[in-house]
Amino acid sequence: MSASGRKLEFWYDFASTYSYLSAMRIEALAAAAGVGVAWKPFLLGPIFGAQGWTTSPFNLYPAKGRNMVRDIERLAAERDLGFALPARFPQNSLMAARLALVGGDEGWIAPFTRAVYLAEFARGLDISDRQALAAILQSLHLDSEQIFARIEQADIKERLRRQTAEAQARGIFGAPSFLVGEELFWGDDRLEQALAWAKRG
Amino acid sequence: MSASGRKLEFWYDFASTYSYLSAMRIEALAAAAGVGVAWKPFLLGPIFGAQGWTTSPFNLYPAKGRNMVRDIERLAAERDLGFALPARFPQNSLMAARLALVGGDEGWIAPFTRAVYLAEFARGLDISDRQALAAILQSLHLDSEQIFARIEQADIKERLRRQTAEAQARGIFGAPSFLVGEELFWGDDRLEQALAWAKRG
Repeated sequence: MSASGRKLEFWYDFASTYSYLSAMRIEALAAAAGVGVAWKPFLLGPIFGAQGWTTSPFNLYPAKGRNMVRDIERLAAERDLGFALPARFPQNSLMAARLALVGGDEGWIAPFTRAVYLAEFARGLDISDRQALAAILQSLHLDSEQIFARIEQADIKERLRRQTAEAQARGIFGAPSFLVGEELFWGDDRLEQALAWAKRG
Repeated sequence: MSASGRKLEFWYDFASTYSYLSAMRIEALAAAAGVGVAWKPFLLGPIFGAQGWTTSPFNLYPAKGRNMVRDIERLAAERDLGFALPARFPQNSLMAARLALVGGDEGWIAPFTRAVYLAEFARGLDISDRQALAAILQSLHLDSEQIFARIEQADIKERLRRQTAEAQARGIFGAPSFLVGEELFWGDDRLEQALAWAKRG
């Protein structure tokens, strides 16, 4: 949190393409605005499931899915980011989300989150693969064995369930979402507006 | 179309809240970019129906619907526009769309479209009501009796069906959508990007 207490919550699912776009730019934009960021990984799966979706809406509605890919290609090109939809989409983001919670406790959640998104959406790696995630942790000079042992503990699993339930209870229905208090903003294209709202205090 | 031939197609449904936002600003933005606008009313209903939706996704998914209303309230306030969701949503936009096609032939489609959206989303009027639409035509100094007779003719009805089929065939799945050639942009928040694309030529 910034000195002034202005704060934005960044709610994201590691399987979400638009969350990738936000994760790569939120820290610089928030710093420029003097706003602190709380990184909040959660799982969209249970929320989608509750509204009857068994997979991503980008798979359920092919025209929407094609547009999403093209839209992200255009935005990624403008921002000098790589982008390729992984062979399997959406990916299983459970393990990455649990690891990120440990990162939140230990101070490495932001670089870890960016590294996971780059592996997934710029390099096309499978982020449900333990070896891929271990390599990311090691690239951040972290003890991957110890951290993988940590996410087997019940309290981390329970915290991710609670965080997902909290997202749903606070009106989140997609990712990325930004909360300033209870004011909800949905989508990477609302990040600037959410930061302006937080700045205004 | 502008002198240089740069052109953007603006596809909209009169029942669509985000199309209202675009309709109110597209002409000024396009003029500043030196891009011509082709106004393309169509019906989302058959496209939504083809993907199994019986009403707006904002009704099917209440959390998404609540966010849409709040999002439009925020954007409308920034742009000095009124906004209130009509008592019945979405409204039946068939008659307004047929009238707009006549307006396309006769050169009054842009002011008519804006006037319908303001009636619907700033004043809360029912745009399936013939009297409300007649008042709008009259406010534009048009012969409403003659125009209502015109939309009873088979060719106008058929043109709206064809325009809707064309939207679907070209990958449109929501409104507003912008086409520059076959490059599709979806959503009011992509209007600037679509205009930049058109300008680049």
